[in-house]
Amino acid sequence: MQKTKYEDMQAKTPSESKTIMTDLVLPSETNPLNNLFGGDLLARMDRAASIAARRHSRRVVVTASVNHVAFNRSIPLGSVVTVEACVSRAFKTSMETVIDVWIEDRESGHRTKANEAIYTFVAVDDMGRPTPIPALQPETDLEKERFEAALRRKQLSLVLAGKMKPSEATELKAIFTEK
Amino acid sequence: MQKTKYEDMQAKTPSESKTIMTDLVLPSETNPLNNLFGGDLLARMDRAASIAARRHSRRVVVTASVNHVAFNRSIPLGSVVTVEACVSRAFKTSMETVIDVWIEDRESGHRTKANEAIYTFVAVDDMGRPTPIPALQPETDLEKERFEAALRRKQLSLVLAGKMKPSEATELKAIFTEK
Amino acid sequence: MQKTKYEDMQAKTPSESKTIMTDLVLPSETNPLNNLFGGDLLARMDRAASIAARRHSRRVVVTASVNHVAFNRSIPLGSVVTVEACVSRAFKTSMETVIDVWIEDRESGHRTKANEAIYTFVAVDDMGRPTPIPALQPETDLEKERFEAALRRKQLSLVLAGKMKPSEATELKAIFTEK
Amino acid sequence: MQKTKYEDMQAKTPSESKTIMTDLVLPSETNPLNNLFGGDLLARMDRAASIAARRHSRRVVVTASVNHVAFNRSIPLGSVVTVEACVSRAFKTSMETVIDVWIEDRESGHRTKANEAIYTFVAVDDMGRPTPIPALQPETDLEKERFEAALRRKQLSLVLAGKMKPSEATELKAIFTEK
Amino acid sequence: MQKTKYEDMQAKTPSESKTIMTDLVLPSETNPLNNLFGGDLLARMDRAASIAARRHSRRVVVTASVNHVAFNRSIPLGSVVTVEACVSRAFKTSMETVIDVWIEDRESGHRTKANEAIYTFVAVDDMGRPTPIPALQPETDLEKERFEAALRRKQLSLVLAGKMKPSEATELKAIFTEK
Amino acid sequence: MQKTKYEDMQAKTPSESKTIMTDLVLPSETNPLNNLFGGDLLARMDRAASIAARRHSRRVVVTASVNHVAFNRSIPLGSVVTVEACVSRAFKTSMETVIDVWIEDRESGHRTKANEAIYTFVAVDDMGRPTPIPALQPETDLEKERFEAALRRKQLSLVLAGKMKPSEATELKAIFTEK
Repeated sequence: MQKTKYEDMQAKTPSESKTIMTDLVLPSETNPLNNLFGGDLLARMDRAASIAARRHSRRVVVTASVNHVAFNRSIPLGSVVTVEACVSRAFKTSMETVIDVWIEDRESGHRTKANEAIYTFVAVDDMGRPTPIPALQPETDLEKERFEAALRRKQLSLVLAGKMKPSEATELKAIFTEK
Repeated sequence: MQKTKYEDMQAKTPSESKTIMTDLVLPSETNPLNNLFGGDLLARMDRAASIAARRHSRRVVVTASVNHVAFNRSIPLGSVVTVEACVSRAFKTSMETVIDVWIEDRESGHRTKANEAIYTFVAVDDMGRPTPIPALQPETDLEKERFEAALRRKQLSLVLAGKMKPSEATELKAIFTEK
Repeated sequence: MQKTKYEDMQAKTPSESKTIMTDLVLPSETNPLNNLFGGDLLARMDRAASIAARRHSRRVVVTASVNHVAFNRSIPLGSVVTVEACVSRAFKTSMETVIDVWIEDRESGHRTKANEAIYTFVAVDDMGRPTPIPALQPETDLEKERFEAALRRKQLSLVLAGKMKPSEATELKAIFTEK
Repeated sequence: MQKTKYEDMQAKTPSESKTIMTDLVLPSETNPLNNLFGGDLLARMDRAASIAARRHSRRVVVTASVNHVAFNRSIPLGSVVTVEACVSRAFKTSMETVIDVWIEDRESGHRTKANEAIYTFVAVDDMGRPTPIPALQPETDLEKERFEAALRRKQLSLVLAGKMKPSEATELKAIFTEK
Repeated sequence: MQKTKYEDMQAKTPSESKTIMTDLVLPSETNPLNNLFGGDLLARMDRAASIAARRHSRRVVVTASVNHVAFNRSIPLGSVVTVEACVSRAFKTSMETVIDVWIEDRESGHRTKANEAIYTFVAVDDMGRPTPIPALQPETDLEKERFEAALRRKQLSLVLAGKMKPSEATELKAIFTEK
Repeated sequence: MQKTKYEDMQAKTPSESKTIMTDLVLPSETNPLNNLFGGDLLARMDRAASIAARRHSRRVVVTASVNHVAFNRSIPLGSVVTVEACVSRAFKTSMETVIDVWIEDRESGHRTKANEAIYTFVAVDDMGRPTPIPALQPETDLEKERFEAALRRKQLSLVLAGKMKPSEATELKAIFTEK
């Protein structure tokens, strides 16, 4: 239907998909301890990361998977929460995104990290079929590190889904066998 | 503050914490393709699983982590979605819960599995401090299998968080080295 | 448009439409006394009962009426509420559903009944016109009792709507005249 | 705690509690046919009627019961809906409210009645205990008619709840036995 | 597409578009001081005023601008808030609406003004193009005063948007130069 | 109660309060033309600007007023909307914030300005009383221009509220009399 134009497929950097979503924790999102529900944070991260994936691919995107997410800090009602997402690696039709969640103290202005998460999205055409996306070109050291780790995570994901034998997941296997 | 009564700490079975949440996909939860947002499903699963964790522990519970979640099927607006959660293994103060998501076809009544997820919760007292919980006693074959797998997942989680050396994760290591 | 297949119209039992919706009372649903608004409970019951009606009829269903509902117990913020609905009697194109609402105490796990309600739904085709539905075959004693009472309720409903003369409502009349 | 002042308990007219709530049907409140969910209309009526009950009693009020409600007309997305509520009869600590629901056609401006409902509220003090309220003094013919009917409805409600024998519900019994 | 019928274009009075929206302040709309968020009040006023504009024009209407709004009084959780809107002047395809916001004290029943605001709407056809609307005929003194002031506000709006030179805004200029 | 520490009152730059809120237009926020409701955009801008005001003042802040807002472009369902807010001038206890709203085209990635708005906030202490805030030090040309214009807007606001005579609003008067 739509022709894929050449310039749409040029590699992009993570900063081109960087998405910042700063918002308050509202009363409708809190549990009996007056902290943000885990589920509401998962939903916010999904929205921010889907925008990053869309900025990279310029396609409609759908959530394919969520990696392990740890909730290390409770986030109280009224907090200012910043969710930052960008694409960390692009595969053929899917993208891994990394999400960092920050909360800031009203009085000191001090900013602390509350969470880190990884979501994967697939770009789809108007019929909902997977469609090719541009490559990702990491620039900073952190971006390069996350780019490398993305491949190991993809292998782990395939192993857990039973689509790859553990013995074939060479990069992953190395972690457990070396040293 | 509250004394932990003896009967509160007796081992429970997964069926005692079984939680069923059947509901419609509402228009406010859908993306531009008219399917349920991944983030909204993550939030529903969090609520159902937290009720299961609360039924097992009879404590206030907070989400500690979400395991890898794959979104295999899109769930259209107006679908009937059933989220079923139960505790799969209890540790000292934390519980792993397994969540199965089903959708059913209106015309045929046929029920298909849309997702499977694993969330971990910590039981806390009135001050938000972790508090001991009863053990889990699996009964069926599926429950026993999930009970065993929970330990490997906990090791993987500790390895990913840098709190356990890969070489110490004996159960996990076995997957990659044997065969 | 769609042919009504024979098997679609076979009588069903109440357990085939049984719908369980367990969820938390969220902060956005509470009144100034920190209890669940009556209106929000009415809306939850409508969603659960409409799913039961849809499971019985395999059609799109619309709410036709709500019977008398008494709110006997207040339901505090943070409660776990279970709404259970099933079809209690099927007429030509409409179904009566019975809804039971339970709340459970977090510490004791004790479950108490908070409400009971009766909603009626009409099955409609794609044009919004009433369409025939299968009969209901009650099995347990409670199901049979509710099946019988449904007829009296339908008569009362017709009398109140001015569509049946009180003198013709034979089953209903009996209540007031006998003894 | 609070002294009940004399003027608080003087009889009021229905027009003193009259409450008008005009609002749009929003996309988040619609079913797959793009009409307002019955449950959302029940919740709106509850809010409007509770304000009427509060205006009459000047107390915190809680929903005690909902009478039979018939949904005669579907209300499409984008409609302007007007919910009008006022107290129809006051008992010792409870009030019956009557609610009329109107929808208007955008192009002709024509207003049609969509629903009529009756909700009962109890006035409570700060501890949630029932507290006395002023009497209602009906003025117009319609108000007087609704005032009379309220007593029959209260009897029906007591009969249905098993708190009054059908033979004692003299006003109600008359409907079925006379003529 | 639709013919504009003659009677649709007859001048209307402000009372013909008068819209009353009485509702509670719900927990999901409050800030950390437990008062209604300014943003939520702005949204309620937009809905009420858009209904008034629609009643005047019998067209789909879209918000064109919001005039200066001052928030003089905080509105606590649980308050009963009444938003009253009506069209104050009609131009060729746009309408100015005036909105008054009242809150009432539960115990005394005393009603005080919380806000006053002015929103402008454009009537559009099915393609989203501006479409002519009837004139407004003010009746009371307050309505006439607001009708006059609307012209000065329109000039101020055009000046601020750079679409009118200050020297041409004769009515507005008079305020600053006379006396 | 809390001592105001010296460093809290040091002048800050606009970039220190800069707040970015990127999010999707959700189905629950759209009007019958499938565009974002004006009222929902006003509410989003209020949240973003209140965070900017809080970052500048490190106090709880409440919305004091909204300046003239023009809605120039409709924003369709599914759009990515970026709301950017920062403090443009600080007075004794109040702050003016400037908000820019951008939408981006999914396919071209092109970003266009949809709105510009000005909200004023007051910083309050725990009792809700106005409390002193740091000065603002503009840096860029645009920031300096907005800083100057803020004074004229404050005068206009005082004139409109009847708290300043038009003849005393010297900066504002100049616009209409010069040239």
